[in-house]
Amino acid sequence: MTIENAKNDLYALQRKLAAYDHALGLITYDGATTAPKGTADNRAASLSVLSEELYRLSTSNETVELLEYLDGEKEALTEKERRMVFLLLKDIREMKKIPIEEFVEFQELLVTADDVWHRAKEASDFEMFCPYLEKIFETTKRFALYVEPDKDPYDYSLNKFEEGITRKTLDEFFEKLRAGIVPLLKKIGEKEQVDDSIRFGFFPIEKQDELSYYLMKTIGLDLERVGLSTTEHPFTTSLGSHLDERITTHYFENDFVCSMYSVVHEGGHALYDTGSNRDLAYTVLDGGTSMGIHESQSRFYENIIGRSRAFCELVFPKLCELFPEQMKGRTAEELYIAVNKAEPSLIRTEADELTYSLHVMIRYELEKRIFDGELEVKELPKEWNRMYKEYLGIDVPDDKHGVLQDSHWSGGLIGYFPSYALGNAYGAQFLAKMKEELDVDSCIKSGDFSAINSWNREHIWRHGSLYSPSDILERVLEAPFNADYYIDYLNNKYNEIYSL
Amino acid sequence: MTIENAKNDLYALQRKLAAYDHALGLITYDGATTAPKGTADNRAASLSVLSEELYRLSTSNETVELLEYLDGEKEALTEKERRMVFLLLKDIREMKKIPIEEFVEFQELLVTADDVWHRAKEASDFEMFCPYLEKIFETTKRFALYVEPDKDPYDYSLNKFEEGITRKTLDEFFEKLRAGIVPLLKKIGEKEQVDDSIRFGFFPIEKQDELSYYLMKTIGLDLERVGLSTTEHPFTTSLGSHLDERITTHYFENDFVCSMYSVVHEGGHALYDTGSNRDLAYTVLDGGTSMGIHESQSRFYENIIGRSRAFCELVFPKLCELFPEQMKGRTAEELYIAVNKAEPSLIRTEADELTYSLHVMIRYELEKRIFDGELEVKELPKEWNRMYKEYLGIDVPDDKHGVLQDSHWSGGLIGYFPSYALGNAYGAQFLAKMKEELDVDSCIKSGDFSAINSWNREHIWRHGSLYSPSDILERVLEAPFNADYYIDYLNNKYNEIYSL
Repeated sequence: MTIENAKNDLYALQRKLAAYDHALGLITYDGATTAPKGTADNRAASLSVLSEELYRLSTSNETVELLEYLDGEKEALTEKERRMVFLLLKDIREMKKIPIEEFVEFQELLVTADDVWHRAKEASDFEMFCPYLEKIFETTKRFALYVEPDKDPYDYSLNKFEEGITRKTLDEFFEKLRAGIVPLLKKIGEKEQVDDSIRFGFFPIEKQDELSYYLMKTIGLDLERVGLSTTEHPFTTSLGSHLDERITTHYFENDFVCSMYSVVHEGGHALYDTGSNRDLAYTVLDGGTSMGIHESQSRFYENIIGRSRAFCELVFPKLCELFPEQMKGRTAEELYIAVNKAEPSLIRTEADELTYSLHVMIRYELEKRIFDGELEVKELPKEWNRMYKEYLGIDVPDDKHGVLQDSHWSGGLIGYFPSYALGNAYGAQFLAKMKEELDVDSCIKSGDFSAINSWNREHIWRHGSLYSPSDILERVLEAPFNADYYIDYLNNKYNEIYSL
Repeated sequence: MTIENAKNDLYALQRKLAAYDHALGLITYDGATTAPKGTADNRAASLSVLSEELYRLSTSNETVELLEYLDGEKEALTEKERRMVFLLLKDIREMKKIPIEEFVEFQELLVTADDVWHRAKEASDFEMFCPYLEKIFETTKRFALYVEPDKDPYDYSLNKFEEGITRKTLDEFFEKLRAGIVPLLKKIGEKEQVDDSIRFGFFPIEKQDELSYYLMKTIGLDLERVGLSTTEHPFTTSLGSHLDERITTHYFENDFVCSMYSVVHEGGHALYDTGSNRDLAYTVLDGGTSMGIHESQSRFYENIIGRSRAFCELVFPKLCELFPEQMKGRTAEELYIAVNKAEPSLIRTEADELTYSLHVMIRYELEKRIFDGELEVKELPKEWNRMYKEYLGIDVPDDKHGVLQDSHWSGGLIGYFPSYALGNAYGAQFLAKMKEELDVDSCIKSGDFSAINSWNREHIWRHGSLYSPSDILERVLEAPFNADYYIDYLNNKYNEIYSL
């Protein structure tokens, strides 16, 4: 093996992995967007075969030999190639510890579980979904122990989404958030609630669709490369590479705000993915480096930008054009107040910035306790409802608006939720840094996002997964990560809105 | 190798092939339906990798040994297994004669060509598409000669869509059609033209969409398994197996008839595919046996059923419900007359039953002459326009309404078009046979398609590709195929409509 041949093989291998990724991702995306309802069995059959093929390709002797050869020739590799080899080897060494039949079985389980979850949610019937969720939790824990028998399996699960994070760090982080958020929420509860009636009424889907494309264009997405579809639960996915990106939203005819912020949130993910340097396409460095950094971008665009006064002023004329009847006599300020109303609520994705992290904490606590054997999956609805009462003071009317609301667990994404809260906090610290160089509010108000996007591209997006999340934070912040920025941001914002 | 293991491997192999088929088919379908416009390069990259993987799987020594072993143990195989082995071996022996790099390059070419064709059609610019089409024709011919150096390469191309057919047979068949159709069309031309104004007006897309689902349900499609999307050019595709079927249509706001018959046509394809016996799923016997038989079903539902007086009477009340303003004062009889107006026109897919075969003949003649070296691809627009003048007496205003109208060539489907004309003729003879057992008109009028569908399922659909097209014809007809049935059908229909 010569180093030149090996390098060629390295890129060829990654092109293959990307193509399988494209196929698997598209079959899943199709299931969520377009496929007829009764076809989950057919997708499961194909996903099972293709993930087995991918597994065999990834773990073949030929692949392992190639990567180990390159790993031994580090000085002949570029920085990017070293990271590729590192990430691939890490992944393969982990995969090889999971028996292939169990791996394939799990992929099949996830397809069926996703289908069952959709139906269970529609019927608000947790029992229907429970046996699948039990298997998902059980398998996730079992796989974690296969890979790192000596590590806390929940820490392992967290690390899949945020390299290096531990429950210890998160416990402290969430404690800090709780200490900041709960008193603020209490003070707001004592004040008169603000008026958010501007968001409710009748907003035809086709007009909301126009709004979506306007927002996508406004925040700087390339519509030749980024598509929009509708799904039960909004998400973002790259198909094969960042050169074909899809976001989804969910429209509600009686409330345009839900979809508006889904589009800006998913749009933030898409900006990050599609901002990868062109030469990272068809490599494992393509796209974002961790879910925490990913959520920092999506929630930066959704909240820090999207729920700013400047953004509301920018978007308001478009709303007047699309919904002239509904917006008659309204103002941009009313929109700003409405989209920042802080109030305990049932649905995480529709929660305001302030209460959002409490939703995340509940899920984090539940996952931990299931992993620790302190809680059984079948007890989830009862415990979910109890915690919503404790943390947010509200009663959950049914499982559809409770434990069945999120798609993450049915998709096997256990350990993911903390990424959202981390993302919020990272984003607030990025903002402070960005403001040292840019007049962020003026940029937003002008509708020209190029300076903001250039800053994010320069510091974060273009690197793809070249750096670990902690490396990215260090490079951008030039200081340790500190959740105080986020608490300060929340205090400033809500003190003003609610005249606390 | 034991026979039992080998049989298991045979089914496992076919499940793999089906999964790749699913992936490749879905990436292509996504490109036509949902993908953002600028992403063809990304699809080309993945299709290239996956078709190479499929090629390697299909032609591996392991696969060939397995199939040759089974081929030598015919007496231990069921009828179905014998046919599986036969079809797989035939395919593989052909594939192995095509160098893999050329095969992969062709797949990439087709993705790009499809994208260019879409843009070229929109811009009505044949020159943009010409270099791609030249390569497609050149490669198709080259591949034909790799596989069967001693066979006429156009015969080989025809056989890919209709096993056993030759240009000699087709020349005679088309001559018979021409001799029947041209005088009939001439007689009609001398009569006063019928009124088809009922189809024109304003028909909102969402109402036409409702009509599509009504039609799909009416003809007996299982909406849990069959999906509908919109595309530039309507088509039908199975994804992985007949358990997930997709049809597409194209809506025109000013004319509901176009989409109405696209849906019924593609619905006929979907009925055939989804009518395969359940145990054929994930085998090469799944779905229709040839494009001629396939078109016999699609055009049976579109024309023989769909353009019958009984069907117009059945559908008319639904049209009145969906388009009350437009249908005010109209009758089912006016619909029947309008959808059977025979008149030379520019677009094949919108042509009436009578002139349709003339459109096909033009394409057949052009393909033959290009294969024979008598015509160059760059001369196609000029020759296309000349032949439309000669065969149909009309002037082609631009390439969009001329040589660029069909998606077949950009998709590499050279030799496909005759299937449509064969399908028309097969269908007319099937109808005569069906009428010996069923009162077809009463079935249609009642809106209950179960007897008609059962007949087709029993005789045709359930077999999938177990029998060759000629075997199917023989089994159904119990007599030789005879195009006179079609000519008689046309004469009866148009003599009555135009009082000839």
